[in-house]
Parts: sequence; C-alpha cells; structure tokens
Amino acid sequence: MSELRHNLITGDWVVIATDRAKKPNEFKSHRSPEEREPKHRSNCPFCPGNEKETAAESDRFGDDSGWQVRVVQNRYPALSPTGELIRSGDRLFRTVSGVGFHEVIIEHPHHDVTLANLPIEDVANILRMYRQRYAKIRADSRVAAIVVYKNHGKESGASIAHPHSQLMATPIVPPQIRQRAREAIRFFDETGECLFCHTLADELAAGDRVVIESDRFVAFVPRAALFPFQVWIFPRRHTSSFDEITEDEAIDLAATLKTVLAKLDNGLQNPAYNYVIRSIPTGDRATAYFHWYVDIIPRLGIAAGFELGSGMFVNSTLPEENAAFLRAV
Amino acid sequence: MSELRHNLITGDWVVIATDRAKKPNEFKSHRSPEEREPKHRSNCPFCPGNEKETAAESDRFGDDSGWQVRVVQNRYPALSPTGELIRSGDRLFRTVSGVGFHEVIIEHPHHDVTLANLPIEDVANILRMYRQRYAKIRADSRVAAIVVYKNHGKESGASIAHPHSQLMATPIVPPQIRQRAREAIRFFDETGECLFCHTLADELAAGDRVVIESDRFVAFVPRAALFPFQVWIFPRRHTSSFDEITEDEAIDLAATLKTVLAKLDNGLQNPAYNYVIRSIPTGDRATAYFHWYVDIIPRLGIAAGFELGSGMFVNSTLPEENAAFLRAV
Repeated sequence: MSELRHNLITGDWVVIATDRAKKPNEFKSHRSPEEREPKHRSNCPFCPGNEKETAAESDRFGDDSGWQVRVVQNRYPALSPTGELIRSGDRLFRTVSGVGFHEVIIEHPHHDVTLANLPIEDVANILRMYRQRYAKIRADSRVAAIVVYKNHGKESGASIAHPHSQLMATPIVPPQIRQRAREAIRFFDETGECLFCHTLADELAAGDRVVIESDRFVAFVPRAALFPFQVWIFPRRHTSSFDEITEDEAIDLAATLKTVLAKLDNGLQNPAYNYVIRSIPTGDRATAYFHWYVDIIPRLGIAAGFELGSGMFVNSTLPEENAAFLRAV
Repeated sequence: MSELRHNLITGDWVVIATDRAKKPNEFKSHRSPEEREPKHRSNCPFCPGNEKETAAESDRFGDDSGWQVRVVQNRYPALSPTGELIRSGDRLFRTVSGVGFHEVIIEHPHHDVTLANLPIEDVANILRMYRQRYAKIRADSRVAAIVVYKNHGKESGASIAHPHSQLMATPIVPPQIRQRAREAIRFFDETGECLFCHTLADELAAGDRVVIESDRFVAFVPRAALFPFQVWIFPRRHTSSFDEITEDEAIDLAATLKTVLAKLDNGLQNPAYNYVIRSIPTGDRATAYFHWYVDIIPRLGIAAGFELGSGMFVNSTLPEENAAFLRAV
C-alpha cells in the first residue's frame, strides 16, 4: 500500500508509492540525448557580441572589455519597472498594476556551459549577482516579494539555451510564499523553534535522505518530497532572507549547488529542472520563524488532472531511495 | 503594463498580460496534427473484447451483451481500496495509510470518440456514472474527498488514447479543496452569500466573459483565469456536492460540456486539456457556502520556475478576448 506523507513546510500532502516505487533507472530511459551546443552562437541574443539584442542592461560583473555575468530586462516582461503601484477594485475584485521587475541573469559568456560543469568560482559569481540584484530591488518600496529561479531544459519552460536565470519582483506577496510563512509562524508559536532549523536537525539525525553536507549547507531529499528527486538545500545558519548570504556562504553554496546538479545530470542523464530560491517577503527581513532555502525540482513527469484538481502530488519514487541513489552518483 | 488580478474563489493572484496579450491564433500554431485513432484497437486494454486486460471491474452501464460505460480499478493505483485507515506520526511528521479509490471510467466502447463529438445522451451517461460512483464511494467512511478528473492528450498527462476519466478518493482533504472551502466560508461569513452564486450573477451581469449559458449551467472564462482559455462551468442551482446533480442537470451539463470542448477543439486545434469536478469534502454535503463546479484547463503552456516557486500564474492572454473567441467558434 502507498503512504501519504504530510509536508510540514509546504503544508502539502503527497502520495508516496512505497510498494511499487519506480527505480531511478526508469527515469533515464525517458531522456533523449542532449543536443550539443556550441561555445558561441552568432544568433544567440545572450552571447557576447550580441549585447544590443537584449533589452536594457541593469547590471554586470565585468567592464567594457568583457563581462562574466550580465543582467538585462526580460524582453517579454510580465511586470514592468516603470509605473505606479495602484491597487484598485473592491472586496469582490481586486486588481494591482503590473509594476515590478522581471530580469534575466545571463550566467556566463559561453553558450554551452551549465552550472554543473562551471568552476565553483563562476557559480559563486552568479550567486553574488543574485544577492546584488536582490539587495538592490528590495529597496524599491513597490516590491513585496522577490523570486529568483532558473528554468533548465525544455520541459522546465526554458526557451533559450544560453545559461540564464531569472528574477521576478512582485507588487504583492505570492500566495505560496505567504502560505509557507504562515505554516512557519504556526510552528514557531507552538514550539518556539524555527521549523526549518528543526527539519534540518531532524534530517541530519535520520541521515538517510541527506545527499551531501558541507560546513554551511545541507542538501537533502525532503521526507515528503512532492516530486521525484526533489532536493532542498538549507543553509545551516538561520537567516530569513537570501540577501543576508555571506561571502563564505556564497562560495559554499556554489560548490553544493554545482555538486547536486552534477549528480542529477550524471545520474538521470541531464534532466530538465527548475530551481527556486525561497525567501521571506521583502517587507520582512530578520525573523525567528523563516529560513531561506533553495528548492530544486527535476521535471520528470507531468502534473495531470488529479494534481491540478487537488493540489496533492503523487510521487512514484521513494525519497530515501532517491537520496541513496544521488549519494552514490 | 500588465495587470494583476485576484481570483477570489481560488485565492490566487494571476498576472494578466493586458497590453501584449497573445492572440488565440498564436496558440494554434503550436499544435501538431492529431493522429487519427481507429474505432477499435486490438491491443487497447479499454476496447471491447479486452475486458480481462483491465484490473477488477467495479461498475458498468450495460450487460453481458455489451457495455456503454465501464469502471475499473486503475492498474497502477495511487490509493488502494483494501486496508485500514491508519493515521500515525506526531506533530512533526504525519503519515496516513494509502487507502482510498483510484478508478478509471472508460467512457465509451469506441476507441476514437471524444466528448466533443459524442451524442449528448452518451456524454450524459458518463456524467451519470460519475454521479453513481461518487454516491457509492462517499459512503465509505475512510474517504474524505473525491476528485473526478480527465486527462485528454499527451500534454495533460494522459497515457492511454481510449477515452477515459478517473476518480480519486483520498483519505485526507486535499489542501487545495480545503483552501477553496476556507475562502468560501470567509466570504459567506462576511456577506451572507455564496461566493459562487455571487460570482455567477456578477459574470452574467458583465457578460463579456460568458461563453455559453443554458437553462441550468453557465460556462465562462473566469475574470482572473489562471490559464489561457480556462473555462468554468457553474450550475445555476446552489448545491455543494456533485452527486446532488439531478437527471435534468446531467443532460444539460452534458450538452454544455460537449459544446465547450467542441469549441476548444475547433478553435484551438484539439488542445490537450484536463477537467476536474470541484466538489465539497465528502464529510460535508449541503452547505450554504460551497457550490460545486467543473474546471476546464487547456494545457497550452508549461509551468516554469516562477509558477512553481510562487504559486502565482502568468496568463499571456486576456480572459475577455478568450471568451469572445470561444463564443464566435
């Protein structure tokens, strides 16, 4: 019989197919061989030499002779940085003007690299840019929350092959972020502890779902993972907002993230994935209850009618087996 | 500038790209031509003659000489009808045994039909079977909620071409169902009205998002539609649970559902879609605040990192334009 597990951090329930779980190699067979990209593509808007093809540049590491990381406005922005924050409507129908930021972080000048095969220092540079943009944009009073995310591979929603991440800064607190904060507050009020610190201690004590641990971060498959091979990376130090990350932590996270992504690439034949940095709403900063983290979601299946219609998930794999597999890669 | 709209029924926020919305014909081009299925496939487990290929049959309309609709256990069930409901764990980690029902409703003996091209009476038969299974399964005290849904086309998660729907009965109330109930209760307590009845009156008064209306049902694109061409079908009569549907309503809903699906097929070149019947948890039945409905979600895009990481949606179309387009098909 399968087992339903409750995810205390997200508030979700997931059906874990404990008795007829798929084995990791069942996922491999679904992957088509990766098309090899060249180091430079003359028609890629994110490749050096084509800087005028992108929308306005908002930041870069590097100078006129070249750049390491470059941030530009999304050419098809969901939210726009110019304009007033206007809330209108009534109890029955509320609207908010689409102000905010929708930026693209071009991670590297080379077209063919991935976070899994870049040097740690280059990955750290990308994280430093996330932090710099995060810190800058949170100062805008129209912004209520910042989501930094990456789409990698076609099934993740990525449309351009050149390695890039995105940042969306919204004028309202997205419901999922508020929901997680609410669960964390409830736990804190009941126990006096940070739910995330508690989960981390719990996972380290159990051990069987830990993928790798470093001085400053722990990567593990959550006990009630919503998706096969989902990995969470938690900082050991309790901080609520991603932009509080220190230089030492950025370098450590770069190594941890690179290693986890390389394990997914090698173990599951380069799956598409998303990752998201989950942080507290920007109106809050240092709280006892919230703890930022990185959420990595390989895109190995399709959400069907049951998932769309219930908000529940069916995970056809065992989190403990996922973790053992990734440890061994 | 885009506009954020709040969906009062789901509690979600959606970014509507009001100024650079995609036009309906931009979606057509993404569709590959439908592979024509035969009326009967000798190797299809759902085709007549192969009844022994399915798991146990739990219901049928028809007799030994043939069937019109047939219900079988899912061969790879997420939940199992045998076993005890056991809740275990503590505040920190709760589990529930995977008891419940996971059934497949084989909609018709013919392999090549769709709800859009079946006679109304045949569609009504499918709805009658939903009602019959719903009423039967809700009597099981281990069941907390029932989700009836359909996956149509590859991008919806469907794996078998023969027309079928599914029913999942869960031993816990899925969070999304509870969340909708909670929003509805809050509205009722504030206003003394059913949120769904109110929305229906509102949509009928506005008119510009209505797709079709009949004596007993109204199909419309919600003002804060989360997805392009999402359509809700609301019964005019206030009832909380789907199994309260009358015979007249079943026939009317069959005609309405068939018409909406035919409009999607013809207007958007047979898109993949899911639909879900959203009903109250089975422990409740007749309430003033909840109102069942059908939610149709064409699968025209991919949820990417922003959606996964925020629970917000970006709808690149205008609900009002979607409705005008579907009315005209």
